[in-house]
Formats: sequence, C-alpha cells, structure tokens
Amino acid sequence: MNAFQFQNPTKIVFGPDTVEKLGELVQPFGKTVLLVYGSGSIKRTGLYDRVLSQLNGIGAKVLELPNVEPNPRLTTVKKGIEISRTHKVDFILAVGGGSVIDAAKAVAAGVPYEGDVWDFCIRKAVVREAIPLGTILTLAATGSEMNGNAVVSNWEEQQKRGLGSPHLYPKFSILDPTLTYTVPQDQTVNGTVDIMSHVFEQYFSRTADTPLQERFCESILLTVIENAAKALAVPDDYAARANLMWAGTMALNGGLISVGVQNDWASHGIEHEISAIYDIPHGAGLAVVFPNWMKAVFQERLDRFVQYAVRVWGIDPTGKTDEETALAGIAATRAFFTSIGAPSRLADFGIGSEHLDRMAEEAVRFGSIGSFKKLEKQDVRDILELSL
Amino acid sequence: MNAFQFQNPTKIVFGPDTVEKLGELVQPFGKTVLLVYGSGSIKRTGLYDRVLSQLNGIGAKVLELPNVEPNPRLTTVKKGIEISRTHKVDFILAVGGGSVIDAAKAVAAGVPYEGDVWDFCIRKAVVREAIPLGTILTLAATGSEMNGNAVVSNWEEQQKRGLGSPHLYPKFSILDPTLTYTVPQDQTVNGTVDIMSHVFEQYFSRTADTPLQERFCESILLTVIENAAKALAVPDDYAARANLMWAGTMALNGGLISVGVQNDWASHGIEHEISAIYDIPHGAGLAVVFPNWMKAVFQERLDRFVQYAVRVWGIDPTGKTDEETALAGIAATRAFFTSIGAPSRLADFGIGSEHLDRMAEEAVRFGSIGSFKKLEKQDVRDILELSL
Repeated sequence: MNAFQFQNPTKIVFGPDTVEKLGELVQPFGKTVLLVYGSGSIKRTGLYDRVLSQLNGIGAKVLELPNVEPNPRLTTVKKGIEISRTHKVDFILAVGGGSVIDAAKAVAAGVPYEGDVWDFCIRKAVVREAIPLGTILTLAATGSEMNGNAVVSNWEEQQKRGLGSPHLYPKFSILDPTLTYTVPQDQTVNGTVDIMSHVFEQYFSRTADTPLQERFCESILLTVIENAAKALAVPDDYAARANLMWAGTMALNGGLISVGVQNDWASHGIEHEISAIYDIPHGAGLAVVFPNWMKAVFQERLDRFVQYAVRVWGIDPTGKTDEETALAGIAATRAFFTSIGAPSRLADFGIGSEHLDRMAEEAVRFGSIGSFKKLEKQDVRDILELSL
Repeated sequence: MNAFQFQNPTKIVFGPDTVEKLGELVQPFGKTVLLVYGSGSIKRTGLYDRVLSQLNGIGAKVLELPNVEPNPRLTTVKKGIEISRTHKVDFILAVGGGSVIDAAKAVAAGVPYEGDVWDFCIRKAVVREAIPLGTILTLAATGSEMNGNAVVSNWEEQQKRGLGSPHLYPKFSILDPTLTYTVPQDQTVNGTVDIMSHVFEQYFSRTADTPLQERFCESILLTVIENAAKALAVPDDYAARANLMWAGTMALNGGLISVGVQNDWASHGIEHEISAIYDIPHGAGLAVVFPNWMKAVFQERLDRFVQYAVRVWGIDPTGKTDEETALAGIAATRAFFTSIGAPSRLADFGIGSEHLDRMAEEAVRFGSIGSFKKLEKQDVRDILELSL
C-alpha cells in the first residue's frame, strides 16, 4: 500500500423524497442560484417543479443553464460562467447525471478565474477557488456527485479533457433512487458500464498489499452485476436502483476504495478520444474498449486477473492455467456487457478506422497513458483496432 | 436499504513518516495546543519528541494532558477541560489509541459547554460546538480517528457511556502504520477483536437489500483475519500493520460501511457494563461476549449468519442445515479469537457472578438494547452468564 491523503467532505442525503430537503441544504450558501440541467427530462418528470418550489421556498433568485449536453461542451460551460458573473451567483445546483454535474463543476471553477476555463483542462492552470455547488443526481453512473472531478468536451478542437480540485467537491448531493426509475434503458446500461469501468481503473493495479481496497472494488462489481439486470427488468425496483446508485457513488467517491493504490485510467483516456470525435455516450464507449484493454494488458499481472475471474465471476480455476482463468474472466466481462445490451464494437456506432491514428495520437498527447501497463501510441492504436 | 445522511470531513494522512506533516496540519487552527496522551509509551518510542519538534516548529505553545487511562476517565477529561479553559487552548492533539482520542473528544466538547461534560453521556445535553481536534493514531482498533464518537468512564458511578457529535470529527488524523510496530501483543489482539466487533454490530442487521454494505463489512473482516496473525508474528510487517490500521479506520469511519443499515451495538453495551466495573480492556471484553451474543441471537435471521459463515469463514454449507452452518461460523469466530490469544471467559479476568444482575440492569438503563434482537435485562444476564 502506498502512502496517501484522503478527504471527502461531501454530504450525502440518500432516500426517497430527499429533494424536499433541498431548501434547507442550499440556504447556508446564499440567495442567487444557478440551476444547471440537461435536455429537459426533469421537466417531464416533475422534478424541475419540485426543485423550483424548494428554491422559491427559501426566497432564492434562480438563473438557469439548461440543455447541458451528454458530453458537456466548453461553450455551454462558458455560457454558465457568463450568467454566473453577470448575476453574481452564490451557489450552483446541478440536477442531472454526470454530464450536468461536470458542467456545473467547470462553471464553479471558471467563475472566479480570470483566464480561460479550458486552461484547467490542459494543465495550464490549477483551480484555487470555486463557487460552492450541490447536486441532485438522476442517473447512477459517474460518481461525480461525491468527488472533485469533471470532464469537459472542447468540440471545436475535438478534445475531451478533465479538471479536478478539492474545491470542486459538492457541498451536498441528494441521491433519491426513485428519480432514476424513468432513466431510459440505454442510459441505465451505460451507467452500469461506467460504474464498473471506474472500479476496473482502480482495481487493475500494480500496487501490492492492498487486500481491503481490492475487496471493496470486488464488492462494488458484484453489487452492480447483481442489480443491473434487476433494474433493467423492473425499472421501479427500489432496492435495485438504490444499490446501483450507491455503488456508483462509492465507485468514485474521491478514491476511497483505492487509497494507496496506483490507478490506471488508460481506458478512460482512450474512450475520451473516441467520444471527443464521435460524441458517443461515455459508458457505451467504455463497454467497447475495456475488455479489449484487458486482453492487451492482462499478462502484466496475471494474478490480479485470476483473482478477478475467481472472485467476481466465480470462475472455477481447477484444471485451468492462470492464463485460461484470466481470459475466462475477461470473456465473462464481455458476456455480461452484452447480456445487458451494451455495444461491443465501434462498428455498432458506424465508426470505422478513419481516425484511429489521430485518436491514438491524442490519447498520448501528454505522454504514455496508464500505469498497469504503460501504453504508447501504437498500443492505443492496437486496442482501438481490436475495438472496430 | 433505509434512507440516510452521511458526511465525514476528516482528512486522513496515511503512511510512514507522516508525523512530519503535523506542523502544517495544526497551523491553521491556532497557536495554543493541548497535547493528550496515555501512559508514556510515546516518550519511550521517541514519538513525543517528534511531535514536540513539529509543534515547536510552528511556534505553538503546548499544554499537556498525560496519563489518559485505557478506559478514559471522566476525572481526566475534566482535568483537560480545566487546562484548556485556563490557557485558552485553540486545538487539541490526541496522540495514542482510541482511549486517548476519546478523552480528547470529550475535552473538545466540554470546554465550550457551561454544564458538566457528563451531561452529554447521559443524554441531558447535546454537543453544539467543540474545540477543533486532530489525532496521531498509535493503535489499530477503534476507528475513533475518523468518527465523531467517544466513550468515557465515570469511575465514581461505575458507568461507561458514549457521546457523539458531527462537531467531534477530527480535522485530521495521521495514520503511520510504523507507529504500531511497538504495540504490545495483547493490545494488537484486543484491537483486532475491537475492529471485528465494530463490523459485527453493523453487519448483523435486520435491514434488507444492502448487498454493498454487507460486502464492505465482509471485506474488512477478511482483511483483519488475514493480517492479524501476520502482525502478531512479525510486529514490524509493514503491509500487515498498514492493512490492519486502514481496516480499523474503515470499520467505523462514521458508519460509511453501513449507511442505510440499522446497527445493533448491544454487545458493545454489554461489554461497557463489564469494563465499567472491572476496568478490563474493551477488546478483551468483546472477545468474551460477542460469540455468546451470536449464539443468543442467530436464529433471528439465520440467512445472515449463514452468509457470514460461508463468505467470511469459508464454511461449506453442503450437507448442513442452515443452523449447523450458522453455528459453524460462530464457532470459527471463537476459534479465531482463541488462535490469536484473546480471552474466552470472564473467569480469565477473575470475574465471577457477583455483579451479573447489576451489569444487566445498567445495560438496559435506557430501555432494551440492540436491534437485531431486542435484549431485555434477562437476555443480557443470560449472555453474561454464558460468558462466565
């Protein structure tokens, strides 16, 4: 186990009807609120009205940043920054999934910063302060509700990059599993893959002597595997939705499950290059890429992949070589993704080999990626080619 | 899963030599520090000098509350409150195990409170503010380093009671596993039992649909079981000490592993009555009581005890009734405690049946205890009698 620091101050308010606590949660932070949301599904479900009623109840002035895209765009973030500055916004409230929350974080970081908010994404600047923000989560997926990270797409430059800071942890996150009853099936699928992928990036590590962290990772994977199919079969199965939601939050709550563990994140990097160009859902891209990344790297640390196969997928190692057991675990991963309806090939999105070189090059723009196995441009290209 | 709120703002600084970060961690909180510690082992190991060097480095004025007892006493807490008031202490630094940290928390709560600090323990008052505190942990056991709870013994009245508040979360906790290399064997044993007992209180629950919480609990138990014997055999085995320490912190970090789960805590209540009268180590008392509590309650929810036996102890349920499997898991618990040298009977401490009635009566002083199975006075007496 490596040395580490960990702190996660986000307050979680979990359960049915917790939206009714919004007023008292926002009140300490001020009177002028920027409400950030997506395509408008929150209006169809009535959530928008409940939120406004709460904010009106504390006499808040509400500005809006609607229409945040699934891969939130820099232009939208900049619009939010402008509104916030003009109206001297005190607090930012994100109501939605990871994209909405990420956009809200980027706005929160950008408002007090004199330069271009994109500077944070290209490592030209560090976030030193931010407007406080809170979230109401409507999709189990990103963990953005309990961490300080965000991903933004610069559509003009076809780049998708992250920013992060301790200042960007939400002050509170309202997690009401019933709000996810109406999530479309494909988004439930993508969210499931996203959660599992977050765990993979922390679990497939070269760091030794981390049994608790490994078991926490396996706990989340098993919980997601057991509950995703239930939520897809019966969208208003409270227990399944609650378990998926909490698993998603724990999977990326500031890295608690992998403290002292060197993470990888190469697969996320590769997927970001795909969705930066093709604007496909992040979880869908991960479903395609991750099993192929596994095949490309598993021999780096066969024991971990054997452990994964046995503990997570119940593969019986008797009579198998370690390599066979590991490959059976990888095959089980792909089979599970397919069983819940996730895509397995880039061709499913009509994506061909046109931009493989460019994606591979962009992925290693700041140097090789990953730590489980360091990937150079050619390695990334190979994984992408395997994904066609 | 029940509705819940969760927030844990404690900053963890984990790894070798993290004591050297003490100065910068204390600095934001002020210049006058009350240093709380125990029997003086920190002087023998040189830790005391390292701490003072750090505090001197930031120009802090240091007051001391030494000699905190293993079951910290109200009289000691009151001494700390008096010193803090006289010298207008800004910050309290606990250097030690759970008892030292608990005493520091009680002092932190007592200083700004006009009444008797014992009021917090007998539910006559609620903690509304506290002096900020930080900790340097020297024993893997209580989790007090990352929660807002404390237990204090009122020796005059032979009572041992808890207090707790969100205001009592340490601002930071320094966790250096190497500081536990010199812990006496019996304290390593008691700490191990304490950690496992904290998990039991959260794991044996009637709340349904909490797969992730259950697996997190099992993860901690398995980690402790795998590492305790290693730490006992080779006291300076860094990995074993680090894994035990982090498991102890996670076992009771504000309830993260059991959010939305109704806890029990009856066994802790019963043990507190024993150590309130006989002043035996908390972990030792728990080792005696817990398997007997299990025997008294396991039929309330056989499925959970079967799961425990299978997942934690690897009991093969084939050809066994559920009751047999459950009992095999309970027997494995006792066998493990014995294997690491923990006591199994009150007689090991020369405790007889003299005070059984009184202990049982005090345990239910505020009504029946426990939630897995509600225990009345006679139930507690039965468990105590089984423990003689």
